[in-house]
Amino acid sequence: MLGFVIIAAVAALSFAALNFYAVKRMEPGTEAMQEIAGAIREGADAFIRHEYGVIAKIAVLIALFLSATVAWYTGAAFLIGALMSGSAGWIGMKIATLANVRVSNRARITGSIGETLKVAFRGGSVMGLSVGGFALLGLALIYGLFGYLGQQLSESQLVIQENWIGITFIPFTMTVSGYALGCSIIAMFDRVGGGIFTKAADMGADLVGKTEAHIPEDDPRNPATIADNVGDNVGDVAGLGADLLESYVGALISSVVLSAYMFYTNLTATSGRISYELVSRLMVYPLTFAAIGALACIVGIAFLLLKKASEHPHRELNISIWVSAGCTLVGSGFFSWFFLRGYDLSALGFKLGALSPWFAAVSGIVAGIMIGQLAELYTSFDFMSTKRIAEASREGTALNITQGMAVGMKSVFYPIIVLAVAAILSNAIAGLYGVAMAAIGMLSFVIATVSVDTYGPIADNAGGISEMSKLDPSVRKITDQLDAVGNTTAAIGKGFAIGSAGLAALSLFASFLYAQATPGDTDGFVLNLNFIDTMTLAGGLVGAALPFLFSGILVEAVAKAARKMVQEVRRQFREIPGILTGEAKPDYATCITISSAGALSEMKLPALLSVITPIISGFVLGPEFVGGMLIGTTLSAIMLALYTANAGGAWDNAKKYIEQGHHGGKGSEAHSASVVGDTVGDPLKDTVGPSLDILIKIMAVISLITVSLFQDYNLIAWLGNMLG
Amino acid sequence: MLGFVIIAAVAALSFAALNFYAVKRMEPGTEAMQEIAGAIREGADAFIRHEYGVIAKIAVLIALFLSATVAWYTGAAFLIGALMSGSAGWIGMKIATLANVRVSNRARITGSIGETLKVAFRGGSVMGLSVGGFALLGLALIYGLFGYLGQQLSESQLVIQENWIGITFIPFTMTVSGYALGCSIIAMFDRVGGGIFTKAADMGADLVGKTEAHIPEDDPRNPATIADNVGDNVGDVAGLGADLLESYVGALISSVVLSAYMFYTNLTATSGRISYELVSRLMVYPLTFAAIGALACIVGIAFLLLKKASEHPHRELNISIWVSAGCTLVGSGFFSWFFLRGYDLSALGFKLGALSPWFAAVSGIVAGIMIGQLAELYTSFDFMSTKRIAEASREGTALNITQGMAVGMKSVFYPIIVLAVAAILSNAIAGLYGVAMAAIGMLSFVIATVSVDTYGPIADNAGGISEMSKLDPSVRKITDQLDAVGNTTAAIGKGFAIGSAGLAALSLFASFLYAQATPGDTDGFVLNLNFIDTMTLAGGLVGAALPFLFSGILVEAVAKAARKMVQEVRRQFREIPGILTGEAKPDYATCITISSAGALSEMKLPALLSVITPIISGFVLGPEFVGGMLIGTTLSAIMLALYTANAGGAWDNAKKYIEQGHHGGKGSEAHSASVVGDTVGDPLKDTVGPSLDILIKIMAVISLITVSLFQDYNLIAWLGNMLG
Repeated sequence: MLGFVIIAAVAALSFAALNFYAVKRMEPGTEAMQEIAGAIREGADAFIRHEYGVIAKIAVLIALFLSATVAWYTGAAFLIGALMSGSAGWIGMKIATLANVRVSNRARITGSIGETLKVAFRGGSVMGLSVGGFALLGLALIYGLFGYLGQQLSESQLVIQENWIGITFIPFTMTVSGYALGCSIIAMFDRVGGGIFTKAADMGADLVGKTEAHIPEDDPRNPATIADNVGDNVGDVAGLGADLLESYVGALISSVVLSAYMFYTNLTATSGRISYELVSRLMVYPLTFAAIGALACIVGIAFLLLKKASEHPHRELNISIWVSAGCTLVGSGFFSWFFLRGYDLSALGFKLGALSPWFAAVSGIVAGIMIGQLAELYTSFDFMSTKRIAEASREGTALNITQGMAVGMKSVFYPIIVLAVAAILSNAIAGLYGVAMAAIGMLSFVIATVSVDTYGPIADNAGGISEMSKLDPSVRKITDQLDAVGNTTAAIGKGFAIGSAGLAALSLFASFLYAQATPGDTDGFVLNLNFIDTMTLAGGLVGAALPFLFSGILVEAVAKAARKMVQEVRRQFREIPGILTGEAKPDYATCITISSAGALSEMKLPALLSVITPIISGFVLGPEFVGGMLIGTTLSAIMLALYTANAGGAWDNAKKYIEQGHHGGKGSEAHSASVVGDTVGDPLKDTVGPSLDILIKIMAVISLITVSLFQDYNLIAWLGNMLG
Repeated sequence: MLGFVIIAAVAALSFAALNFYAVKRMEPGTEAMQEIAGAIREGADAFIRHEYGVIAKIAVLIALFLSATVAWYTGAAFLIGALMSGSAGWIGMKIATLANVRVSNRARITGSIGETLKVAFRGGSVMGLSVGGFALLGLALIYGLFGYLGQQLSESQLVIQENWIGITFIPFTMTVSGYALGCSIIAMFDRVGGGIFTKAADMGADLVGKTEAHIPEDDPRNPATIADNVGDNVGDVAGLGADLLESYVGALISSVVLSAYMFYTNLTATSGRISYELVSRLMVYPLTFAAIGALACIVGIAFLLLKKASEHPHRELNISIWVSAGCTLVGSGFFSWFFLRGYDLSALGFKLGALSPWFAAVSGIVAGIMIGQLAELYTSFDFMSTKRIAEASREGTALNITQGMAVGMKSVFYPIIVLAVAAILSNAIAGLYGVAMAAIGMLSFVIATVSVDTYGPIADNAGGISEMSKLDPSVRKITDQLDAVGNTTAAIGKGFAIGSAGLAALSLFASFLYAQATPGDTDGFVLNLNFIDTMTLAGGLVGAALPFLFSGILVEAVAKAARKMVQEVRRQFREIPGILTGEAKPDYATCITISSAGALSEMKLPALLSVITPIISGFVLGPEFVGGMLIGTTLSAIMLALYTANAGGAWDNAKKYIEQGHHGGKGSEAHSASVVGDTVGDPLKDTVGPSLDILIKIMAVISLITVSLFQDYNLIAWLGNMLG
């Protein structure tokens, strides 16, 4: 089956390369357009180069730490993960900065929504296919390099080994966990760095441009406008790609590691109940499921690209996603049936026979879609919540903010109910293995959702280029329509990211406990995550506080850079007199430097926090504390992720609703109140929210990797021994 | 020892009565002052009467439900709790509306800060003494009425009984829990109702008065100004009093119930390890500790009232608190030593002999003070965080809000570290009993802290009356100084409320588990709160979401009423032309009605949510789910409580810092940005924050009371039986 996974990965990457060059070959438009696009591309290139320089150093340090304390192959797998994630982000940024101007040009030449959509979507698909392709390729590489060759899991991979200081562990779980950690760390840096860059530029551009100088978005007179467009590429594209690759790998890894531990204890038990062959099949099942999804997405993407262009972009994109999801479901259903039938699955707690893990995956998909739809309900101006924020803006800024916070806080509840039901249901169908499969289900057609998610910022950027190179307003109208469609579809992607993080975290908790169990002990865990234990509760408290600290640091970082941006833009308007009349050109480069410097200096602390906290806590306070901490962090991070995403989205759309002419429309008191709300929501929804699900997984995976070390060596245990 | 508790309660209540009439006898000032004070008093009276009417109906319904499902005495104890809590809130409101004008008058006549302080503090002490007195009186009543008479715990109280549908439970735990629930429910209504009233009025008054009409605070031309002052009395005084009574009782009850369950299982074990006499002593220990604290506070309060007035209000108040805390510590230290020495305490896990629970209480006190000090660090403008918010206001409203959110989020971390250390330490010293004692330690001198907390709003109200009756500005200056001092000292009270809630919750979790253990089973619990169990994790997710839903509902309720208030104030300015020139009198009554109607209609949903959610979840999904839910709610509520309190406080003080003349001072762009921030923070710090610790305890106690019912009768168990 590994061969099948490699085929799927290579197919996805080949299709990505095909689309990359297809886009690159297209006409890049007028000289003015090319000049602006060139400035954006150079800015993005320069930032990513700096960013990756910083990341590379930190990644090597972490790899060395892992090699020294755990095992060399954990460090090596970590680097492979970092490489895969970094490549996906980099290619996404590359294609986005090539596609933006070509989308704009296609709209200019053809005037057709359908034709323009195809260019933008082809660009987006490069990112989507790279995410899926690199993730699977890396996994296949890990399996291949570290002993998993061929159809069945090599038995030696499930044998306990010792590292140089005499700590025992299972090599297989240490390599795949290292791989996942590599993906997650890069994703954290890409998300946080890109998020700070883009929001500092965005807030700076809006606060002075819109609120003080009263010039429209993407106006070339605004000194921060190029930085803002660079930000879309490094934050919304590269950051998003690395983030979803991380989610995808996280979900896969959580199921594989869990299976490894579960089945290892089973196999080494004095009376094994599950056959070795079945164990092998269950461990290869999630990867094959994902590979089927990847192939299905290739079909879905090709379908849209090859069919005749229509003028209904929303329908087009939906068709592509539904084709991908449908093929995934049908394909994986057949696969489950043929792959698992004939085995006695009742000992595993599978309630629905060979289709049990498939049904669990389906429950995950349904939950993910519902979470996305619920986000719509709270953030789209077609519904009450956002309309009420717009209405409250009539009574001023304070009430716009207050009402938006209320909507954000309330919006947490129903998605959580859905997630809880999915967890209970998938567990009832196929045990903890089922919960892991629910997470994989959500992400099995990630290639299609990332393609759509990336297409949005490309269209947005194309709009910016049209505006700045003063193309006919009809061009901007086309790109705006495409952008709006992307926003709606992207909500589902967010639901998948946060939902899968919650479910994957549960599998990782279980693995964390299994990693401390005595080999062969099938009766239970050595450790319970029981909150009556004061150490666990204390861990829970600290864990729940961490996402708040993390979010506060991020928001402050954005605010800091945004303030500098505001000061710089104000300075330029003041000191370069011809800017607002269009006679003088603003100094775009300084604004890019401010965003870039802010992002590079501020991204390290939050990222390192996620890595270092579990390690230090583990060595000081031991595994009970860390276990409680993981749960506290997961609960609190999921709530904050939903709150920030929905509050930010609702403020954004309340502003758009007013701009459509309600409550006085543009220029009214209500409108300026809503602009403030939108700006307040910006760092929440685009910097904080998407980073939180990465935080959960980094902390869980790093704890899992290091728990073998600190379960024996920690200060509290040492004190306990000392005192008696 | 029960006699001693009764003596302390009666002493506190007598001293309260003495101070009440002493204040009432004082001169109420000029006719203009009396007229305004009368309007405030009538408004507050009318609201409390309406509010208590609504609460009474709901309380009777809950009492009937408890009597029908659990036992008649649980319902009866619930009503006693409701009565005690209601009385304390009512008396506090009464004295505050009498003291305000007398404070103002004393400042007018004497011009002395010291003399004025004494009047305000005497008023505040009535609330403080009532809180402590009624809480202890009610507890003594419960013990007396339901079988606990005299020095030792009646053995029959620890015998399992059956209710009419054959469910077994321990009557003693059911009565004290019912009592605590009664206190908590009233506190929830008082806090939520009062919080909505006061913040709707405050926001309405500020948003139009300050931001649009540019008239100062408490200006009689502002139609919402009387409502604003009424709000101080029903929210900050009555709400706060009921809240702290609830915290006090919650901490006491959590320790008593935990002891009852722990020792019951111990006593009924086949080989009991702890003597019956020791068990009795440990169960009476917390109450006696609290009674010692009450007497110590009487000393501390009398000390301030009897000593010569000085001109250093801050020092005066601190001396009073430190005298109370010092006497509490010394008295309880001696008591611990003489009461527990000579017993073999090692079987209980007491590490420091007879002083173990005392040391645990001390660790709680230290933690509470540190949490309060940390709040100062984040919210006082003497420190960086708040100064940075003020600075960010220069770049506009959005950055003031963003920076404030960042400060609030970051401020969660260190207090949680302190709380975690306190939990670990008190547990290490004296086990779970020690954790409960840490919570009691924090609240043992609650009478002194509530006296100071109440003194603040009284001084604030006095300032309002001085302003509205156009007294000499020197009067306002005195009351402002007193108010500012109160704010600083009140921070410690907040630290105690939230810290004790966290620690009390842990004892309640343990009791929740004990309540499901088989009698005589000392080996462990039937149920673990293990988060690997999917049902527990799902409960944790839903539980963590509840405080967000709850907070969102509250913020929205305030925003709704505040919007109506803004519209009404704008209408009056528009339609009654002479208001701003002082020629026409605004219509104060309509504004009071808006706040009142908003509070009465919106307070029911959040309060009922806290009661109904655990019951429904229990009967549908069973005890594992509810256990997880309690933990999720506790973690999430503590974080939100710290976040909302500190963000709100920091915004408030950033505004005050600017008003002192920094960054352009009053009237500058930075100032109007900071006014918006302050207004956004208002519902967070004064409505949401203080209600969250009540939410934790209501949910925990109601779960504890009903768990015996739903552990046998729940849908999931029934489905499980049906399906095999």
